Order: sequence, then C-alpha cells, then structure tokens
Amino acid sequence: MNKVIECVPNISEGRDADKIKTIAGVIERPGARLLDLSSDPNHNRTVITLAGEPQAVAEAAFDVARAAIASIDLTHHHGEHPRMGAVDVIPFIPVGGVTMAECCEIAEQVGKRIGQELNVPVYLYAESARVPQRRMLPTIREGEFEGFAEKIKDPAWQPDFGPAERHPTAGCVAVGARNFLIAYNIDLDTSDVTIASRIAKTMRESSGGLMNVQARGIFLEDKQRAQVSMNILNFATTPLCRVFELVKMEAARYGVGIVNSELIGLAPAQAFMDVASYYLQLPGLSRDALVETRIYE
Amino acid sequence: MNKVIECVPNISEGRDADKIKTIAGVIERPGARLLDLSSDPNHNRTVITLAGEPQAVAEAAFDVARAAIASIDLTHHHGEHPRMGAVDVIPFIPVGGVTMAECCEIAEQVGKRIGQELNVPVYLYAESARVPQRRMLPTIREGEFEGFAEKIKDPAWQPDFGPAERHPTAGCVAVGARNFLIAYNIDLDTSDVTIASRIAKTMRESSGGLMNVQARGIFLEDKQRAQVSMNILNFATTPLCRVFELVKMEAARYGVGIVNSELIGLAPAQAFMDVASYYLQLPGLSRDALVETRIYE
Repeated sequence: MNKVIECVPNISEGRDADKIKTIAGVIERPGARLLDLSSDPNHNRTVITLAGEPQAVAEAAFDVARAAIASIDLTHHHGEHPRMGAVDVIPFIPVGGVTMAECCEIAEQVGKRIGQELNVPVYLYAESARVPQRRMLPTIREGEFEGFAEKIKDPAWQPDFGPAERHPTAGCVAVGARNFLIAYNIDLDTSDVTIASRIAKTMRESSGGLMNVQARGIFLEDKQRAQVSMNILNFATTPLCRVFELVKMEAARYGVGIVNSELIGLAPAQAFMDVASYYLQLPGLSRDALVETRIYE
Repeated sequence: MNKVIECVPNISEGRDADKIKTIAGVIERPGARLLDLSSDPNHNRTVITLAGEPQAVAEAAFDVARAAIASIDLTHHHGEHPRMGAVDVIPFIPVGGVTMAECCEIAEQVGKRIGQELNVPVYLYAESARVPQRRMLPTIREGEFEGFAEKIKDPAWQPDFGPAERHPTAGCVAVGARNFLIAYNIDLDTSDVTIASRIAKTMRESSGGLMNVQARGIFLEDKQRAQVSMNILNFATTPLCRVFELVKMEAARYGVGIVNSELIGLAPAQAFMDVASYYLQLPGLSRDALVETRIYE
C-alpha cells in the first residue's frame, strides 16, 4: 500500500470540552487514527490532527465535518481567530507514498460530499484551488461567517460544491490539499538577535531566499540565545539539510556557530530519509527501505 | 505501544516450494507480517523474515517452529549449509521502541515453549546465551544434526530447554536475541581495490577498528570501482554517520573520494534518525518524531 495522508480539520469550538470530545470521537476506525487535539479557548477553535490510509482518513474527515456542522452554531460563536464555518478548513496532506494529485482527489471527494450531503457551501483551496484567488485561505475567509451571507452572492464567490447560500448555523468550509509543514528552528551560538534576523532574511522566500521557507529571528529568553525560527512548506523540494547548511553558511559570516537545531511537532519519515540520503551520499534512499514501512503499510 | 521486533527463522528446507509455503503460511496475523522468504536450493535452507509487535511475532515464530518440526526430516536432509535442526536458528531482533532485554525475554519464552511443547532441545544463543561458549552459533552447531546424537550427552551441551536428547527427525534449535545487522557499502572513486582493502582493515573490529563493524574491500566488475563492503552489527553504538565519515577520512589519505554509499536490504527507522540527528545537530531525534510512528504504533 504505502500510502499515508494527514488531515487537520479546524473546528470553531475551543471551549466546550464535551462537544469537542464528541466531534473528535467519530475519527478512530481501521486505517485512521486521531493523533492530536489542540484547543484554544481564546481562539474558540480546535485543531484536530488525524492520519492514516487515504480512504479511511477521507471518511473520518467527512464524519468530523458532519459532527461539527450538526453541533456548532456560528450565530453564537465568538473568538479571536477568524472563521467562516463550524468546520472552518479541512486540509489533506501527503505524508508518504502518496502524491499531491491523490490528496487533491481526496479533497474533491470529501468537499463534494459535504456540499451535497450536508448542504454546506465548499471552497476548494490551496493546491486544490480551481482559480488563483482561492489558493490562500485568508482571501477566501475574508468577511468571515457574518459577511458570507452577502459575499456568497457575488459570482466570484460561488462555491465549488454545495448550495449557493451560506448554511444558517454552519457557514461554509474550505477543503483542499496542501504540503506538510515542518516547523524547524536553529539555535545560534550568540545572544545577538539581529544576527538571527539577518540570517532569517537571507533564508526566507519572501525576501529572495529559499522557496517554501518562512523564517524569522527570535530571542530565547530562557537560553539567552538567538534562534532562526522557520517553517518549511515543502520538504521534498527544500530538504532540511539544505536549510541547515545554508543557515550554517550565513552564520559563519558573523563568526557564529550553530548550537543545535530543533523539530517542533512531527514530520514524515521521508524528510529524514532525504537528510540521510544527502549526507551519506546514498542516492534514492526512501522510507521504503525501512523495516517499519514494510510492516505497517 | 511503539514496540517493533523482527524474527528471522532459518529452516532446513530450500527445495520443496509447497512445504516452504505451508510453513511460512502460518505467520500472518494481526500484529505480525511476513516480510521476506529467501530459499537457497544448494544450501537446502530458507531464511524467513517476519516482523511486527513482539507478542504476535513470538507466537508466529513458535508456529513456524512447530510447522517446520512437523514436516522437515533431517535424517534425509542434504545441503551445503551446516544445520542442526529442522528449524535451525530463531533470532529475535529489536527494530524500534524495544530493548535487547525485552527481545531476550521473548526468546526465552519461545525457547521454553519449543522445548516443552514440541520436545525439541533448545540452546539459548547470542545475547540470550547463559554461558559464553553458547554466544556464537557455529560453536553450538558444531557436529551438526548427525553429531548431536552424541554431543548432547556431554554435560557441557545440556540444552537450556527441552529434552536432553536430540529430536529424532528435527534435531535441535538455537533461539536468542541479537542486534539488527545493517549491510552498508561505500563506493570509492578509484578502481584500486587495495585501497578499499586497506580502508576496510582500519574500519573493522577484528583488526582494531570500530566495534561492531565487519569490513572488506571488494572490486565491482560492473562499475570498475573499489568498494568498502561492511556489516554494522549494532547501529545504536556504531551509527552509519560515524562509519561513513571514518571511511571518508581514511580515503582522503589516498586522495580518494566517496562516490556514493549503499544500503542492502532494509534497516530500522532509528538508524536514519541517528544520522539526521548527527548532521542536523538535532539532539534526541527519534522515530517517535515521525508521523508514521504515531499512526501505526
């Protein structure tokens, strides 16, 4: 099989623990597993992480959407985080043995079912977007739940699936495929945060650095140390080893070394196979060479 | 859970495809999977690789032993490979999230059952050996099936489990825990095999090099290139990155570079996490940081 995807539905409920538990409780089944549940009461929002085989994850994601749409009423919702739906966004993410195109198919399948069976308007976003202005979630979400009563009547904001009017309590939802995001930080052997900021500037896509890299310099109070804090938006085209070596190279400009690097959260096995492949000069090394892959997939 | 072990029973049948299929057919069950079946007609021997959760693998290994003992008659067995039993050796190997001590417990459990329920004498070997002279399989196997009719009467060769006489058709069996063996080769940018042999000598334990490394220099006819061909017997204490960097360092003595390295067969994920941990200066990086580990274990 060798196909693993992740799905990270964001639901607009971050306070009612029972309700959150009920919604997340629909996930577990053969082939799909709940990995993480992260609620923020101020945002009044919960980030659910599930993963497993594509079809099982697709069905679990649909069931999450159904449960959220049935129980969350946005007419009474307040929170700091912008939102347009009871289930606000459902990204599908390739982890291993699966292409972005396959994740797009899953997103279309789930989006279509949400539109048809749950009567909620669906916008395909990110890699699944059919038009450029639907690639970025903030652009779609502009106006939020309240504004969509009118926004959806604009021909430019006809949904991709489902009815052409906002669901009275559940709003609308963005569904799409995107890459796995790796949160990766590098601690420098200096307390001078301006050095970290200058290195971050050379690294990030937005200021002419590496594609698929977001970076900023921060100061770690506890360690009294500067850090280059990064998101890597596509580890396949921009592997961790290239990011690490470029930061090391730029730090050397200031006579600064690297103390250590740090992974926040989880990452797909292939991200580290790519690192080992580079440094060991071992071409084509993939997760298929792992005993674990052969056992479980 | 997070516990994965491998088991590699060697059975003394490498010709009768139906019989081999029947024996290997007892393996698959929830938690245990047949990964590989490799028969050699000249050796008249089959190497079976299974893996999964410790308890499921233990039960599958016992079932393989029972099936082999029931159907293989060593009084009629001929082959180039030395052998003392219908099932000749059953090693249990930690892959991930499991200690050598736990694999030793599994080996004892399976060995005890083979002795008591199948009436076959069992020698605990490798890391499970209770006395030093039972660590090495060739020492135990000396005399082979035929010689064990007498050898087993020697008080020094009393079995650890089971009857104190050779099973009439199935002989006896070695059961024990050992480390995962990684077969790892490094190709040099030279056709001079004497350079590969000299590097191999500096690398291997037996001539004063790195512990847990076996190495030799060979010439690759097809590529007209010299190679340092190695077995790494304990990747936890002797990680791939250290082996690679030391070969690179020694090759530099001759003005020779590394073209590429190569993994033969499979390896546990942790072996590559250790490599990434070293080069990325990312302390404590383990397979627990993988999405895949969180899904499947």
